Amino acid sequence: MRVLGIDCGTEYTGYGIVDLLDDERLVCVTCGAIKVSPREPMPTRLSRISVGLHELICEHRPDRVAIEDVFYAVNVKSALKLGQVRGVAMLAAATAGLEVAEYSPLSIKSAVVGYGEAEKHQVQQMVTRLLNLDQVPESPDAADALAIAICHLHTAATKERQVG
Amino acid sequence: MRVLGIDCGTEYTGYGIVDLLDDERLVCVTCGAIKVSPREPMPTRLSRISVGLHELICEHRPDRVAIEDVFYAVNVKSALKLGQVRGVAMLAAATAGLEVAEYSPLSIKSAVVGYGEAEKHQVQQMVTRLLNLDQVPESPDAADALAIAICHLHTAATKERQVG
Repeated sequence: MRVLGIDCGTEYTGYGIVDLLDDERLVCVTCGAIKVSPREPMPTRLSRISVGLHELICEHRPDRVAIEDVFYAVNVKSALKLGQVRGVAMLAAATAGLEVAEYSPLSIKSAVVGYGEAEKHQVQQMVTRLLNLDQVPESPDAADALAIAICHLHTAATKERQVG
Repeated sequence: MRVLGIDCGTEYTGYGIVDLLDDERLVCVTCGAIKVSPREPMPTRLSRISVGLHELICEHRPDRVAIEDVFYAVNVKSALKLGQVRGVAMLAAATAGLEVAEYSPLSIKSAVVGYGEAEKHQVQQMVTRLLNLDQVPESPDAADALAIAICHLHTAATKERQVG
C-alpha cells in the first residue's frame, strides 16, 4: 500500500509518500515541500499547490491520501487560510478518485513516537529511523507529511489484522 | 463587464453572474446555489462545488470573480470548513485565469443597500430591484452572490471614473 501524506500550510505544504511492503517494512518513495510566496495572491498560491499535488499523484500513484485533522488554529483568520489549502488538497485527492483519511495531531504523534505529547524534533527523528533514511528530512514539513503517511499505514495495518 | 459572485458555504454555495452594460444597467445573467449533502465526505462535496463552478465559468465566461472576505466565523472549526470551500472557489477562478476580488460583508451591504448594517432581507430586496428581477431570488445564497457581484461592479465602475 502506498500513501501520500500532506501537511497543509499557507507557505509550505509538506508531502511524503510511503510504501508499506509485504514484509511490513516502511519505505520513503519521495518527500519535500511545495513552497509558495506569501507575496503572491492566494488564488495563485492555491493554484501552485494544486498543480504540485496533481503532479505528485500522477507520478507516484498513491492508493490513499492522508492529512492532518486540525481543530485548533491561532485564530479564525488563520483557520480560514489554512482551510483554503486543505480544501485544495482534498480536491486534488477527490479529483484523482482517492479517499482522504484524516488524523488528529495526537494520533499522528502516538503512531510515530508512541505518545501524543511528543516534540517536533522527536517526530522528525522517529520518521528518519522508521523509514531508515540517511538523515532527517531537510524540510520539517516533509517530515510531518511522512509522519501522517506512517500514521495511516499503521492504522490501516492494525485494522486489517483486526478484520483478519 | 461580467462578474461571477460566489457566496461560499459548506452546504449551499450561492452563485450569481451580473453584467454591467454600457448604459450602466445591471443585468442578471444567471443565479442559483450548488447544494451538497452534509452526509457526503468533504472531498466529494468540494469536488461537486469545483465541477459546478467550472461549468458556470465555461458556460458564461465571466471577466472576474468576486467573493466575500470573511474575518469572522462561529469558531475555528467552522472557519476551517468554510476556508475549504473558499479555497476551491479561488482555485476554480485561478484555473480559468480569472482574478479574484474580495469584499467585506460591510462593503457588500454598503454597495447594495447603502449602509453596512443592513439586514439580510433588505439585501435581497435591493438585489431584486437593482437587477429588475420579477421576484426575490429563491435561494438566499444566490441573492448574496448577486450582491457580491454588484458590489464588485460598483467598485470597479467607481475606480474607472476616478482613473478616467
